[in-house]
Amino acid sequence: MIYLDNAATSMMRPPEVVDAVARALTSMGNASRGAHAESLAASRTDFVCRRQLASLFGVSDPQRVCFAANSTEALNIALMGLANPGDHVISTDLEHNSVLRPLYRLQAERDVEVDFVPANREGVLDYGAFARLVRRNTRLVVVNHASNVTGNLVDIERIGRFCRERGLVLVVDASQTAGTVPIDMESAGIGVLCFTGHKGLMGPQGTGGLCVAEGVEIRPWKVGGTGVLSYLHTQPEAYPTRLEAGTLNSHGIAGLSAALDFIERTGMDVIASHERALMLRFLERVRDVEGVTLYGDVVRDPVPQRTAIVALNVRDYDSAAVSDELATTYDIATRPGAHCAPRMHEALGTREQGVVRFSFGWFNTEEDVDAAADAIREIAS
Amino acid sequence: MIYLDNAATSMMRPPEVVDAVARALTSMGNASRGAHAESLAASRTDFVCRRQLASLFGVSDPQRVCFAANSTEALNIALMGLANPGDHVISTDLEHNSVLRPLYRLQAERDVEVDFVPANREGVLDYGAFARLVRRNTRLVVVNHASNVTGNLVDIERIGRFCRERGLVLVVDASQTAGTVPIDMESAGIGVLCFTGHKGLMGPQGTGGLCVAEGVEIRPWKVGGTGVLSYLHTQPEAYPTRLEAGTLNSHGIAGLSAALDFIERTGMDVIASHERALMLRFLERVRDVEGVTLYGDVVRDPVPQRTAIVALNVRDYDSAAVSDELATTYDIATRPGAHCAPRMHEALGTREQGVVRFSFGWFNTEEDVDAAADAIREIAS
Repeated sequence: MIYLDNAATSMMRPPEVVDAVARALTSMGNASRGAHAESLAASRTDFVCRRQLASLFGVSDPQRVCFAANSTEALNIALMGLANPGDHVISTDLEHNSVLRPLYRLQAERDVEVDFVPANREGVLDYGAFARLVRRNTRLVVVNHASNVTGNLVDIERIGRFCRERGLVLVVDASQTAGTVPIDMESAGIGVLCFTGHKGLMGPQGTGGLCVAEGVEIRPWKVGGTGVLSYLHTQPEAYPTRLEAGTLNSHGIAGLSAALDFIERTGMDVIASHERALMLRFLERVRDVEGVTLYGDVVRDPVPQRTAIVALNVRDYDSAAVSDELATTYDIATRPGAHCAPRMHEALGTREQGVVRFSFGWFNTEEDVDAAADAIREIAS
Repeated sequence: MIYLDNAATSMMRPPEVVDAVARALTSMGNASRGAHAESLAASRTDFVCRRQLASLFGVSDPQRVCFAANSTEALNIALMGLANPGDHVISTDLEHNSVLRPLYRLQAERDVEVDFVPANREGVLDYGAFARLVRRNTRLVVVNHASNVTGNLVDIERIGRFCRERGLVLVVDASQTAGTVPIDMESAGIGVLCFTGHKGLMGPQGTGGLCVAEGVEIRPWKVGGTGVLSYLHTQPEAYPTRLEAGTLNSHGIAGLSAALDFIERTGMDVIASHERALMLRFLERVRDVEGVTLYGDVVRDPVPQRTAIVALNVRDYDSAAVSDELATTYDIATRPGAHCAPRMHEALGTREQGVVRFSFGWFNTEEDVDAAADAIREIAS
């Protein structure tokens, strides 16, 4: 089987991730619940992982790295905990439903106003629209760091400067970039960075979180036991406890920590270069196949910095039919359809057909790429 | 090391749980995201686990078993998604902060009224209070199936009958009982059952969920990508998707499923009998030690059905000091303090001292019990 669905989840993982989780499952207590060695081991693992993530994302205080079950939860926490009635939020056509649905809910339930920066048919944002859309009541800007459909990267430094000049809080969805694209929260002016552990970070499912910049105060969302200040009626004020209630997934966090070690040892740039080389190789091999339509900024020359995704369609074939054919005949895993990103597909003009998404990861090889390109050529002919 | 903190998390686990998670970490895609074999494997694992949980808890439709990161999240989903402004809620002194803090928030933010059924100094509920506290606007009853401090069991069948007669929705926190005490949602008249995977169920941290009875409609809480109906602005209506957004922790769920297999094969009654025997053995050995005070209904003769917890204090020693002594001198892991259950400690009269909690699990032995009892005898003398 050739797994080219890394943008959904990184199925292949460094062996040390598996080992770390296996060890944790039989040696770890409940973090911050008691002072015996096993509870402390869990607390220590969580703290080490916070420190690794803080270092990766340019956060000065590891206590402002809060864990969540995935980036969807992190985004719900950030958006529900920041937007007030009457606020205006600017977001973009590139967003995943993990951003869109919380925003639509805020519109419906909290009288929050939302505008979307449009993307063109290549999935590229109209950056000028941020300045046109901003209003006196604009408070938040929420952007996807990279589209999960096309792989197009968004210039968050540019948007960060814009937000800093206007005093807006920038929330970034780094689901597709954490682990492969450098992110420095402080220099980029990011207020809240939401990430998931099981994609580019190569950790287990059930891990992820949000990093909160100094000065950004998010209302608690999930409330409950914290192991500290038990007599308080409200969630404790201090991060990370403020945004974490209940037993953390320290088993998963142990795996995420091992994955972060692996990424540091291997070099994020080395990983990103490998994935980009595979993407470019695939592009080169399918670009001129008759009947293949490519989506995203891959049509530019040179291909700009982006994540290792190639989205395409073959003739007018339904994307699900092509993906099924790839799975059943060629044993190649891809992802068709809407990818939970409806506005992106409207912008690309692929609402009905969807697209077939190929996403490459560290464990993929040139042979995987060539097999996939050959398969597309056969299907197209 | 002797681990007697199973009420916090079941540190020791069946080897097949570890194997299942390890296998999942390198073979599983993202559930409900695509139709390739790896995604389907994850979807299948999730569904099998829903079916096992439905069978364990007497739920007729496995699709009404919704996953969450832990019981705290499940309780937040249930309470925030059921209580409306002006509703009255009855809860109890036995609750954990995972129930109390959401209720206090509902009081503050949604004008929900809350009353608590008191517990006596043995931690036993005043069942007559339910009828005294009920009002015309009472809508929910939220009860802990067993206290995480004392191990006292609550008669949910009795409360279920009361709720059924009055048309109230009964929410049960089964954090301490799932996996060791039989629960039949339908016959007990439970509207929502919240459980965690990493305690009595012996699964990984990061797993848990809620079972929702037919006719109970919980508003979505976390919203976002679902892999289906991507063009809807709102979370899909159907369970379980209604209450699940973002990538599920299928790696953890694979482990939970293996743990449920283990419990079924071993027999929940066999597990419960073993744990009870250990609890009774410990009780017998510490009951008459001079200076030991016991809490909960263990003072009754015979000791009623309960979970395998013994809560005690030694003289007027701070519970944290005793627990530290047990950890450092005797290598015995217990949990002191407030256990995130402030009202329980008020009822027991242990707000200042806390209690030292010994909680026994399937992997504990008589030798563990005897060592712990000997240690307490030494500390007390």
